[in-house]
Amino acid sequence: MFSPLIEDLIRALRCLPGVGPKSAQRMAMYLLERDRDAAGLLARTLEMAVEKVGRCSQCRTLTEQDLCALCGSSRRDDSALCVVETPADVLAIEQAGNYHGRYFVLHGHLSPIDGVGPADLGIDLLEQRLAGEPVKELIIATNPTVEGEATAQFIAERARERGIAVSRIAHGVPIGGELEYIDGGTLAHAFNSRTAFFSGN
Amino acid sequence: MFSPLIEDLIRALRCLPGVGPKSAQRMAMYLLERDRDAAGLLARTLEMAVEKVGRCSQCRTLTEQDLCALCGSSRRDDSALCVVETPADVLAIEQAGNYHGRYFVLHGHLSPIDGVGPADLGIDLLEQRLAGEPVKELIIATNPTVEGEATAQFIAERARERGIAVSRIAHGVPIGGELEYIDGGTLAHAFNSRTAFFSGN
Repeated sequence: MFSPLIEDLIRALRCLPGVGPKSAQRMAMYLLERDRDAAGLLARTLEMAVEKVGRCSQCRTLTEQDLCALCGSSRRDDSALCVVETPADVLAIEQAGNYHGRYFVLHGHLSPIDGVGPADLGIDLLEQRLAGEPVKELIIATNPTVEGEATAQFIAERARERGIAVSRIAHGVPIGGELEYIDGGTLAHAFNSRTAFFSGN
Repeated sequence: MFSPLIEDLIRALRCLPGVGPKSAQRMAMYLLERDRDAAGLLARTLEMAVEKVGRCSQCRTLTEQDLCALCGSSRRDDSALCVVETPADVLAIEQAGNYHGRYFVLHGHLSPIDGVGPADLGIDLLEQRLAGEPVKELIIATNPTVEGEATAQFIAERARERGIAVSRIAHGVPIGGELEYIDGGTLAHAFNSRTAFFSGN
């Protein structure tokens, strides 16, 4: 019903996550009818980002620089290295604000069925860092999924061979959460991983 | 936390309707991590659309051609002309599928407070069409809002001066709707605009 170019735009907008045909149509109409300046800016920024954004040579997070701001900072603690699956995870941990070490971004998890092996996750680069930097503790913060756990195990083994302390972030009932609404798997894990208040004598 | 270019991209994505900071961040990560081809295509299509899409010289809907597909079609009924506020309204009416006349898109409604007058809505072009084309009925399908009604009144007056029949689409309880959930204004309108089943004698 729309002209070919507008139909192309609606189709292209559907590549965005969470955007279906109706939202894409609404976005296209909004951009063309009300805010062409913003649309032009979005087009140019997106083009530039696609062209220039690569990976940090040290932690593999997304950045257009050779070294990301966190890796370039001299105020981080070199003795701790946290392994996460995605750049968004780095942001989440930074927003929590109590970790001051370095990061390593896998960009996924081990998934033989999808052909994702250690090389795709940059495990060789991680090992280089473990060998060359004064890392005392490797904190594994992959997602608590089957693949995330398998990836955590794999990396833990590699670090153990080098005699580096390895830890996994805790999983259990979220702070502020109500037990009534927590799924059984999480609750079972929370019981198994309970910590002692004090040990009876 | 992200690099400057990624922050720019997140900010630019927020110009999309219904996209807040979290969604914009998710979209940026998705485009850069998983689908750069689609991101590049979106950037190019958006740029081209912003540059090339203008208005149909006859009905003012959005199109990159001089004449839109509907105005260019010889199979439409020239005797009926439907006035709508936006190109999306044309689509909605076409999808309903029982109107086969021509269209005229106002791109808004009269709103003196926002400085939108008859000239901005192309009323002069509409009058040219009423004078030059064999229009027998002008169907006004502006939105049933205060501004939409005022716009409808204004256009109806202009057409009446030319002796052209003018109608307004019906407003009332939506088909399939339940009375219980209909707002009072709509229900009052539905009572006032009731149509006769048969007239008693």
